[in-house]
Amino acid sequence: MSENLSSFYDWFSERNIKNDYHIDIASLSALEGWKVDSDGSAIRHRSGKFFSIEGLSVETQEMESHSWSQPIINQPEIGILGIIVTKVGDSYHFLMQAKMEPGNINLIQLSPTVQATRSNYTRVHRGSAVPFLEHFVAARPGSVVFDSLQSEQGSWFLGKRNRNMIVEVPDRLPAGEDFIWLSFEQIAALLRVPNLVNMDSRTVLSGLPFLAMDDNSTDSSAVHSLGDLLSWFTEAKSRHRLDRRTVPLHSLPGWEFDGDKILRPDGRHFTVIGADVAATNREVAHWSQPMLRPIGRGVIAFVGRLFHDEFHILVHARTEAGTADVVEMGPTVACIPASYENLPRAERPPFLDLVEQSDTVDVLVDVVHSEEGGRFFHAESRYLVVDVGESIGQQVPENYCWMTVEQLTGFVRYSNHVNVAARCLLSCMADGVAERTAVTR
Amino acid sequence: MSENLSSFYDWFSERNIKNDYHIDIASLSALEGWKVDSDGSAIRHRSGKFFSIEGLSVETQEMESHSWSQPIINQPEIGILGIIVTKVGDSYHFLMQAKMEPGNINLIQLSPTVQATRSNYTRVHRGSAVPFLEHFVAARPGSVVFDSLQSEQGSWFLGKRNRNMIVEVPDRLPAGEDFIWLSFEQIAALLRVPNLVNMDSRTVLSGLPFLAMDDNSTDSSAVHSLGDLLSWFTEAKSRHRLDRRTVPLHSLPGWEFDGDKILRPDGRHFTVIGADVAATNREVAHWSQPMLRPIGRGVIAFVGRLFHDEFHILVHARTEAGTADVVEMGPTVACIPASYENLPRAERPPFLDLVEQSDTVDVLVDVVHSEEGGRFFHAESRYLVVDVGESIGQQVPENYCWMTVEQLTGFVRYSNHVNVAARCLLSCMADGVAERTAVTR
Repeated sequence: MSENLSSFYDWFSERNIKNDYHIDIASLSALEGWKVDSDGSAIRHRSGKFFSIEGLSVETQEMESHSWSQPIINQPEIGILGIIVTKVGDSYHFLMQAKMEPGNINLIQLSPTVQATRSNYTRVHRGSAVPFLEHFVAARPGSVVFDSLQSEQGSWFLGKRNRNMIVEVPDRLPAGEDFIWLSFEQIAALLRVPNLVNMDSRTVLSGLPFLAMDDNSTDSSAVHSLGDLLSWFTEAKSRHRLDRRTVPLHSLPGWEFDGDKILRPDGRHFTVIGADVAATNREVAHWSQPMLRPIGRGVIAFVGRLFHDEFHILVHARTEAGTADVVEMGPTVACIPASYENLPRAERPPFLDLVEQSDTVDVLVDVVHSEEGGRFFHAESRYLVVDVGESIGQQVPENYCWMTVEQLTGFVRYSNHVNVAARCLLSCMADGVAERTAVTR
Repeated sequence: MSENLSSFYDWFSERNIKNDYHIDIASLSALEGWKVDSDGSAIRHRSGKFFSIEGLSVETQEMESHSWSQPIINQPEIGILGIIVTKVGDSYHFLMQAKMEPGNINLIQLSPTVQATRSNYTRVHRGSAVPFLEHFVAARPGSVVFDSLQSEQGSWFLGKRNRNMIVEVPDRLPAGEDFIWLSFEQIAALLRVPNLVNMDSRTVLSGLPFLAMDDNSTDSSAVHSLGDLLSWFTEAKSRHRLDRRTVPLHSLPGWEFDGDKILRPDGRHFTVIGADVAATNREVAHWSQPMLRPIGRGVIAFVGRLFHDEFHILVHARTEAGTADVVEMGPTVACIPASYENLPRAERPPFLDLVEQSDTVDVLVDVVHSEEGGRFFHAESRYLVVDVGESIGQQVPENYCWMTVEQLTGFVRYSNHVNVAARCLLSCMADGVAERTAVTR
């Protein structure tokens, strides 16, 4: 790794030493500040704020209909995820923060300049003010590079979204000890390090190309025009149906709420647990909360290949339980393989076997990152981009579509087009790995 | 009017003669095929299909909160509004249809090639098949020019949207007597004729610039960049809240359901009425349905002016009762002035007085069109585009933003950005009236 990261690691180690914290798994029925509704229908904060865990009955319809029930996190408020950037010579530098989240594998990860729920910044829990927040609320100093409402994990969140922002300022701002300025090259290198750059950073960084991109640029060597891609997306939205209704937690088919946790007797998907958290470096020093703990490591992958010397990725029009508007553009594969282990091949997610066969594909990105540590406990995903060469042709199933990296990035600007898994994968390709592939061939 | 329209008018008169129909106002409680729920909570079709009239309690919050209740049309299914186009020499020709809708001022208006609810094309009411539908469902012949999910009147429809499509075919298709091929120039001329080109045609025609536009084009003389406009829109969505819940029709504050109709004793907004319809040229020969009848003619207007020799229009970030995602981009003014007649100036819609003062503004577009005649009875709006010169500066209230016509058109491609009133106004400017203004100055 050619970037000099030693000063970063010095700072990061010190953050870990300076900040003491401790996480205990606790019973959902005994979480301070939280209550299970008397009829067992939902778990809510006593203030009515933050978020709740509810039961959801889901029915989707496309060619055939599927229905299932699951617990889901309901957090209707829109938070802000914002990164401040400034130009230093020919490079951009980013103001990042070391931040503890209880679900993080390494507890402290690299987060955006500002990562604040609305409860945070309106001071619901009477914590300290959020540094640099003034750069992300009107009328703000600096100029906006990227500003979009983006969805989060649709399998775990009901219609949740955050405002993703990148704001450029003329000069480096002075920052406290939990903050650090990193160059683009340093960030790109750190994005290849496991469980370090948190999900909130990765989704915001998917807007990074807009720092350098013209308002509109065309991509004439792409397989499909912008109009074709929009039509494919519109058609997928029209073809799918997504009907949802809230149902009590205690009677979700396939799930069991034993008082302490909500789990699936068949061991699939995830468990809802409670956590008691003690920290010295957060807005408040102690708190408790429910968290979602997946049963295994996820796989989030783009299948890619060259067409006309341009690297294309296979995008999936995907419906999840919490998707705000029926369908969003997702990676080729996004699943927890352990949930499908004993199923016949036909019931396994399409393309999963292909991306896991690393001997037959050319691996461009392969790094393990954490999902959001504020809600998800030890939720890791293996982020993969693989070049499958000519083993897949231009014709693909109707819920899939070939796009260039630039085309998918273009949709990121428009709210609720590209899902969080795909945005995080785009960030992992920020160092231009796809373009290099195209040039090398 | 230089375009030769005599053959069009010959055809159109004949359509009127050949098609017999009759509309009677009827009591909501006695509509064949419809029932009022036993508790008076909603009016539904006995088949469970088509649409229902429900009560809605609405609370919006921005700087201050507003709440109100109203009847609203709930029609969750996505219909298709599609126009077939072909290139003839240097011009484009459009396949249009003469279609009767019970609410139309002149009963027959010019509609898209295909105008079909999902109930229509899945044959719920056992009518005849929809001609040309095969061009708008996958895998279709022809190439897609424009394909987007678009909202309809948010004040009257709950989250209703239709798929707007323009499909190009290589040659003129043979068409039955209710269809006609019209050139772009003829359509542009007819868009200046009152109550002739129906709303469904106008919203689809807002995608017309994509026939000739590059995938992405820039507009360097605009006041704001694309990034700025997206940020303004994101901020408006984040700032507004829109909470809704269904409430019984019979107990809507401010409304009275007398069994025959639902009306406001203060005479504002609209009335829900019943209609019995008999026609010889529709999928079925007789039917009854509820309809919404506004209390007066609406005003739908863009305030515009030149900046840097480029014509800009003042776009309003607007929340309506039925808006799918909190806010869409609307015209500067959209209201029924009669609803605000006796109110003090401060409670009248902003810019309404300005656009109605035709002596102080330069009128570029001024034409009366009908709203959708399938749901709205005699709903007319005066579509206005006025050049106000320098009477308004670059600084405007935060819910308003200056854009070029091309910039607003760019957002039309992306679903649920531009509302139906603004899209219909864009269609009325399809003849380039804004560019001519810029050149003349």
